[in-house]
Amino acid sequence: MAKEITAEVISIGDELLIGQTINTNAGWMGERLGLIGIRPKLVRTIGDDRSEIIEALSTASCDVVLITGGLGPTKDDITKHTLCEHFGTRLVRHPAIEARIEAFFRSIGREPLEVNRAQADLPEACTVIANDRGTASGMWFERDGRVFVSMPGVPYEMKAMMEREVLPRLEERFRPPAIVHRTILTTGLGESHLAQRIEPWEDSLAGEHIKLAYLPSPGVVKLRLSAYAGNDPAEVKARVDRKAAELLALIPDLVFGEGEDRLERAIGRLLKERGQTVGLAESCTGGYVSHLITSVPGSSAYYTGGVVSYANAVKMEELGIPAGMLELNGAVSRPVVEQMATGVREALRTDWSIALSGVAGPDGGTEEKPVGTVWMAVAGPDGVRSVKGFFPGTRDLVIQRSALSALNMLRKRLIGQVDPA
Amino acid sequence: MAKEITAEVISIGDELLIGQTINTNAGWMGERLGLIGIRPKLVRTIGDDRSEIIEALSTASCDVVLITGGLGPTKDDITKHTLCEHFGTRLVRHPAIEARIEAFFRSIGREPLEVNRAQADLPEACTVIANDRGTASGMWFERDGRVFVSMPGVPYEMKAMMEREVLPRLEERFRPPAIVHRTILTTGLGESHLAQRIEPWEDSLAGEHIKLAYLPSPGVVKLRLSAYAGNDPAEVKARVDRKAAELLALIPDLVFGEGEDRLERAIGRLLKERGQTVGLAESCTGGYVSHLITSVPGSSAYYTGGVVSYANAVKMEELGIPAGMLELNGAVSRPVVEQMATGVREALRTDWSIALSGVAGPDGGTEEKPVGTVWMAVAGPDGVRSVKGFFPGTRDLVIQRSALSALNMLRKRLIGQVDPA
Repeated sequence: MAKEITAEVISIGDELLIGQTINTNAGWMGERLGLIGIRPKLVRTIGDDRSEIIEALSTASCDVVLITGGLGPTKDDITKHTLCEHFGTRLVRHPAIEARIEAFFRSIGREPLEVNRAQADLPEACTVIANDRGTASGMWFERDGRVFVSMPGVPYEMKAMMEREVLPRLEERFRPPAIVHRTILTTGLGESHLAQRIEPWEDSLAGEHIKLAYLPSPGVVKLRLSAYAGNDPAEVKARVDRKAAELLALIPDLVFGEGEDRLERAIGRLLKERGQTVGLAESCTGGYVSHLITSVPGSSAYYTGGVVSYANAVKMEELGIPAGMLELNGAVSRPVVEQMATGVREALRTDWSIALSGVAGPDGGTEEKPVGTVWMAVAGPDGVRSVKGFFPGTRDLVIQRSALSALNMLRKRLIGQVDPA
Repeated sequence: MAKEITAEVISIGDELLIGQTINTNAGWMGERLGLIGIRPKLVRTIGDDRSEIIEALSTASCDVVLITGGLGPTKDDITKHTLCEHFGTRLVRHPAIEARIEAFFRSIGREPLEVNRAQADLPEACTVIANDRGTASGMWFERDGRVFVSMPGVPYEMKAMMEREVLPRLEERFRPPAIVHRTILTTGLGESHLAQRIEPWEDSLAGEHIKLAYLPSPGVVKLRLSAYAGNDPAEVKARVDRKAAELLALIPDLVFGEGEDRLERAIGRLLKERGQTVGLAESCTGGYVSHLITSVPGSSAYYTGGVVSYANAVKMEELGIPAGMLELNGAVSRPVVEQMATGVREALRTDWSIALSGVAGPDGGTEEKPVGTVWMAVAGPDGVRSVKGFFPGTRDLVIQRSALSALNMLRKRLIGQVDPA
């Protein structure tokens, strides 16, 4: 096994420290580094401060040091001056970069100011990396076997520079051991119950030299398989694929996609394939399920519409729920949620419908129906089915988790899996 | 002026390094520290790795070191063992904490496993900080004048622990120079246009020793005023309050609240005060406005319900829009959005209604109605009014920004401000 190549990110910017801007760059860079076999080991976020930048550069101990931020044209952007100081070099004007900056400003119908032209003043001792999306160039330095790359902090500029220039050059420079990944997305079981259910399969991974990571977020647990590609990447890929296929066969009710997929996109694809439509009747989720479905571009092809029935009067009038049924069972009950589903399916003439009625909290819970109790129903060509879920947590969590749970009910119906009635 | 108190955050978790989870904790903590006069100076994000944690603890040089993550019950959560090693202490079972953990599990209807009970094993030499929202306790250590606090990485648990325990104790321990803050929340104008409108007022702040920060997020710009309280906090507070009052008088159409308030909460208060109700008719926002309104606890007091009319058939049937009107004007038009608003107000018999119809993209834009064009209407006791907004950006941004814009229309109507027709 080749020596492991490690990387550190230095994110520069006062706005990151004081919570004005969330540091999304560092995680993105870490993910991309991991995909080419370089291990992200440390992220340091520091202010626009000369001594803190020097301190970070001096104590960097990874093979790769990626620096973002502080490259703008204003006087609080001090990164390149500090890089010159640290690497013992000086700024010189790069005519080719100056020409690019001029062309960039012309393209947006403006004349560059001298502060903009000064962005072509770059360290003499670095390799300049072009920025296709802005005016701040990247800078590549090498010292003591370490590579330092300074990039702009604007995510859209940094990402293009990473993808087009920095990652290929790092692969060329370090030839890191390639890694094979697959990320399987699951919903419907929490991390610990999921772990219990797949324990024998998980135990079999070590013998195959495959690592498993659980990556939970509200309502979803991602399972990431990874293995070093070694000298026979095709064999390793086949091995990872085989274990992934075993997992899919083990928990088909829970797996809804891979990688960057989302449950609402998976449902969209299933509905589109079938040329079918869906309508919504939401109570406790207050429009959130409709919002998830319609956040997908092109969802108008299969999402017809929805009703948010917060007041009982709306449940009765728009969804055809008899007053007696509400009185007898309460709004959070099987008969009501099933009538919500069939009522909205008839009103909107959709193939499928989803309905939810529950106690999102923080108030309104009872001994019998505590906060987090949510009845969910799916109605379709073959009838209506409902289940009662219990999602303890804050109001936001009850809404998020019951929404995903109801979407997963529809997904299972679409692929022919049946919930216990 | 007292010595500046500085803080460092150590965020522990492989998931943060590999980009599976965005580190939102560190920025939030930095913001909160700033509010009590402690300067956030460095964030280090490291993996669940003993030697990396020890390295970070050993090289910490700020007065306050806040550590998050690695406190879960599974074996890759090694923070507390590593803290014991670093501070030369050992784990002992805390019966009071064990009782809390038992009670927590009972409250969600489960029995704790031994791995859960083991979360009551905590370092002998630390002050234990109770976790009101979960089972991982906080730990407070002091060494060489520095305070180290270890907290869970789950944002919802960490935030409660910070607000209720850690920040008050840090103020007590360090007595940082007090700072007077006010954060004014605005919507309806982007950062640069807002800056233009309040320029003379902003210029007057320097003479009053007040600093202004613009904190933009989609649809909202926060304006944060801050000043050192010095020896006469009452005088400084009065000065900041006077400038805040001037600002409110300058842009009453844009200011909807202060601090952690949200536009949907402000509207909820206004409706409650008046004993009035609201209903929604959404097209391009697909349920997002209803979701925002119903994310507020107690919103059932004033939110009656809503219709998401994605398909034209739904617009016609549920909202009483004549087919001819849709054909003549298109769904994204003044007549249609006004009929959506009046139609839903009549159907749900609410005092107020909001309607939106627009092009969220990425497809569906035309020369005349490009992506980002959104018609918004508010109907109420005094009639219906509508405006056309243009919110260029991704689908998510179009949805978020038009939702806030429509909510602000209702807010202005409720307080008697009139939009240009």
